[in-house]
Amino acid sequence: MANIKENEPINTKVISGFMELLPEEQVAFDNIKSIIESTYHQFGFTSLDTPLVERSEVLLAKGGEDINRQIYYVMNGLESKERIDQALRFDLTVPLARYVAEHFNDLVFPFRRCHVGRVYRGERAQRGRFREFYQCDIDVIGRNELSIRYDAEIPSIIYQLFRKLDLGKFTIRINNRKVLNGLFEDLQITASTSSILRVIDKADKVSYDALVASLKKEGLTDEQIKSLTTFIGIKGDIDSILMMLNELNVSNALFMEGVNELRTVTELMVQMGVDRDYFTIDLAIARGLDYYTGTVYETVLEDTRIGSVCSGGRFDNLAGHYTSEKLPGVGISIGLTRLFWQLRENGLLKTIHRTIADIVVVPENEQNIKTALSISNDLRIEGLNVDVYLEEASMKKKLQYTNRKEASYTIIVKSDLAGSEVLSLQYKDSDGGLIKKQMSKDAIIKHITEGVH
Amino acid sequence: MANIKENEPINTKVISGFMELLPEEQVAFDNIKSIIESTYHQFGFTSLDTPLVERSEVLLAKGGEDINRQIYYVMNGLESKERIDQALRFDLTVPLARYVAEHFNDLVFPFRRCHVGRVYRGERAQRGRFREFYQCDIDVIGRNELSIRYDAEIPSIIYQLFRKLDLGKFTIRINNRKVLNGLFEDLQITASTSSILRVIDKADKVSYDALVASLKKEGLTDEQIKSLTTFIGIKGDIDSILMMLNELNVSNALFMEGVNELRTVTELMVQMGVDRDYFTIDLAIARGLDYYTGTVYETVLEDTRIGSVCSGGRFDNLAGHYTSEKLPGVGISIGLTRLFWQLRENGLLKTIHRTIADIVVVPENEQNIKTALSISNDLRIEGLNVDVYLEEASMKKKLQYTNRKEASYTIIVKSDLAGSEVLSLQYKDSDGGLIKKQMSKDAIIKHITEGVH
Repeated sequence: MANIKENEPINTKVISGFMELLPEEQVAFDNIKSIIESTYHQFGFTSLDTPLVERSEVLLAKGGEDINRQIYYVMNGLESKERIDQALRFDLTVPLARYVAEHFNDLVFPFRRCHVGRVYRGERAQRGRFREFYQCDIDVIGRNELSIRYDAEIPSIIYQLFRKLDLGKFTIRINNRKVLNGLFEDLQITASTSSILRVIDKADKVSYDALVASLKKEGLTDEQIKSLTTFIGIKGDIDSILMMLNELNVSNALFMEGVNELRTVTELMVQMGVDRDYFTIDLAIARGLDYYTGTVYETVLEDTRIGSVCSGGRFDNLAGHYTSEKLPGVGISIGLTRLFWQLRENGLLKTIHRTIADIVVVPENEQNIKTALSISNDLRIEGLNVDVYLEEASMKKKLQYTNRKEASYTIIVKSDLAGSEVLSLQYKDSDGGLIKKQMSKDAIIKHITEGVH
Repeated sequence: MANIKENEPINTKVISGFMELLPEEQVAFDNIKSIIESTYHQFGFTSLDTPLVERSEVLLAKGGEDINRQIYYVMNGLESKERIDQALRFDLTVPLARYVAEHFNDLVFPFRRCHVGRVYRGERAQRGRFREFYQCDIDVIGRNELSIRYDAEIPSIIYQLFRKLDLGKFTIRINNRKVLNGLFEDLQITASTSSILRVIDKADKVSYDALVASLKKEGLTDEQIKSLTTFIGIKGDIDSILMMLNELNVSNALFMEGVNELRTVTELMVQMGVDRDYFTIDLAIARGLDYYTGTVYETVLEDTRIGSVCSGGRFDNLAGHYTSEKLPGVGISIGLTRLFWQLRENGLLKTIHRTIADIVVVPENEQNIKTALSISNDLRIEGLNVDVYLEEASMKKKLQYTNRKEASYTIIVKSDLAGSEVLSLQYKDSDGGLIKKQMSKDAIIKHITEGVH
C-alpha cells in the first residue's frame, strides 16, 4: 500500500475554491491591494492583523446554521482529532469585535481600523466563488456614541479609493434603514418584515405587477402595497428624493430621523469632496436585516456587468456577544478576491506593470558583470526595482529572459572592440516600437528616473 | 446545559501561541514588514501569495514525525470530521516547490520570488515561540542549473535590508556544505555524520576538552578529531581563512570545490556593494543536514542578545517530490514574528511612527468642520495620512484624542472673536517641547510636507 501511494504523482493543483495567481497576475493583485490599503491609511485608519485562527466559541457566538456548516475547523496534529475548539475566521468583523472587547482599555475612540486579510468559508465551490478570499474592511467604532459624520466619511473614502483604482464610472448608493423601518411602523407592517425586505431588495429586477403579487403573498393589504410601491418608486437626484420623502407625510419619528440622517450624510459627503455624480440615494437598498441599523451603502461599477463591489453601513453595537460596553460603528467591506477575479474575467486588469522589476540589467560577457552589478546598485539607490541577470548563458537566452520579464527597460552592458564597456538602453516608445540607445550611466539614470516617476 | 454555556462569558483572549498586536505595535510591525518586502522588490523578486491551505499529501510528501505532529489540519464543517486531506502550510518552501512544479511552463527562469506570509506549527507554546508566524522568504530557482553568482546576491540583499532596518551591527556568516562534506570524505568519516555536524554546530559554545570528548563519543579516531578541531579552529578575515583552508592540503575534490565557491561568493559580495565589515566565513555553520548542499548563511545581530535572525542556503533540487524537473536554488528566510517579539522584548522597537496618521485635524466647533474637512483633503493630496476628528465633544476630550494618537502634527481649526477661521499648528520640537503656531493653510502644508518628507 505504502509503495503504491509513493508511486502515485502528488497532486500539485491548487485546491478547488482557492485562488492562485501567476507572478504577473499577482503584481496586478498586489497593486490593487496596496492602493486600497494606502487610501485607508490616508484617512488615518490603522491596520490590524489579527490571527487567522479564532476560538470556535468566538466565531459561533452569533449562531446560525450556515456558519456552522461553512466554518473551517483547525486541529493541531493527528492525535487531537476530537478538538474542534479552534477555527479559521469567516469574516473580519467578528475578529474586530473580539479585539475591541479584549483591548478596550488600550484603544483610542473613535477607533479607526482597517484590515486587509483573508477569510475562509466552506461554501460550495463554483465559478467566481472562493473558499479563501481577501476582504478589505474599514470601520470606525465609537464608545457609547458615534457621530453621524462618520457615516459620511466612510463613503468619501470609498469615493477616493475607486477614483484611484480607475475602474470607470461607479455609483455609491446610499440608504438608511430607519427610513424603511419607520415606514413599516407607520404602515403597521409587523409580520414577516425580513421577507418583505428581500422582496424590496429585488424590486428593481421585476415588473410592477410581479412586485405587487409578491407583496400580496407576504400578506400586505392593498393600501400597504400602494404606499410601499409609491415609496420604492421615488427616484431622482438627492434633493428631489429628500423632498418627495418629506411630501409622503409619514408621521413616524424613526422615518423622519432616517430622512434627516440621509440629508446630513449626503450634505457632508459634498463637503468631504465627493463629486455629486458619484453617489445617489437608493431607497430600495435594504441589506442584511439584523445587523445594520442606520445608513447603508452599496457601490456599483457602472461600465461593467460586475455589479456591487463593496457594501456596508451603520450598526448599533459591534460586540454585544463579548462585552457589556456599547460600541456603535460604521464600516464598509470590499471583497477583493472576487473583484479581482471579475476584473480579470472582464479583461479589465491594468497590465502596465506586469513585473515588479522596472529594469533588467544584462551583462553580455563575464567581464561585464562588475559594471552590471554597479549600475544595478546605483539604480536601486534611486528607488528603482532592478533585476540583474547572473546566469552564464548565450545572449539569445539572456534576451529571452528580458523579453518574457516585460520590464519597462533593459540595460545591456557590453565591451566594444577596443575593450571599453558601453551601455545600451532598450525600451519601447509609446507606439510599441523598440528604441535602442547607447548612453552613459548618468544619462541612463536620468532618463529612467525621469521616465518612471 | 445550553443555558449555562450562554451565560458563561466568551473568552476573547488571543489563543496561546498566537501573536496579537495593539495598533501602535502593529504600525511598527508593518513598517518592518514593508521594508523587507520593498527591499526584495528592489532586487526584482516578485511576490507570491499562495493559499494558506494545502493538500496534506503535498505537505507530508517529505515525511517526518515532527511535521505530522505539528501540522494543523483543517476541515470544512462539522459533518466532515473524518477529512484530514487539507492542512495549513508550515513553511513557505513547500508551497514554492508545489507552485513551481505546477506552473513550471508559465514561469521565467531563473525564477526570483519573495513571499511574506504566515505559517503554522503546533509546537509546544512557550515564551517567544509562536504557532502562527510570519516568514519572509526569497529564493532564486534555476531550471537544471543556477549560477553560483546568485549565492552572492542573496546575502547582498540581506545586507541592504538589515542596513535599512537599522538594528545596529550585524554579521552575515557564510559557509559551504561542500567544505565540511569534503573534509568528512577525506577523513573517511562515513558514520553518524549528522550527529557530528550537530556537535560542530555547537563547538563555539563548549570548551575544547568537551568538544573532543563529544567527538570521541561519536566514534572518531584521535587523528580525525585532531583534523576536525584544527579545521573548526580556523578563524580570521576571509582571505586568511581561504589561505589556511588551502594550506590544510585536503586533496578532496568536493572540499576544493567548496573552498572555491566560498572564494567566488565572498569576492562577488564585495562587487555587489557589501561592506567587508558585515560578513565573514564561519566554518562551524552546518545547518540542517539534508536540505542544503552548498553555500549556507546565518545572520546575527551583534549589538543584542537576539542571535540568529535569518538563515538559508543553496539546495540542489527544490521540488523532487512533485516534478521530475531539476530545480536547483538558493534562498533565505527571516522569521519576522520572532524577530519582532525579540526587538520588543529588548526595547529595540523604533517608536517614531506610533500611528499611521501623520496629522490629526481637530475642528474646535461645529462651524469649523467644513474647513477641517477641506484642509484634510488638501493634505491627503500631498500624500499625507490625515485623521480628522468628527465627534461632537468638548475641546478637552478632543485634545485627549490627539494626545493619545501621538501623530507628528495636530491642526486645530477655530474661529477668532471676529468670526474668521484660523489654523493652529501644534508639534513637538527636537527637544520634545510643544510648539504652537498660528499659520495660513498654505504655510502649514509647506511646513508639514517639508518636515515629513
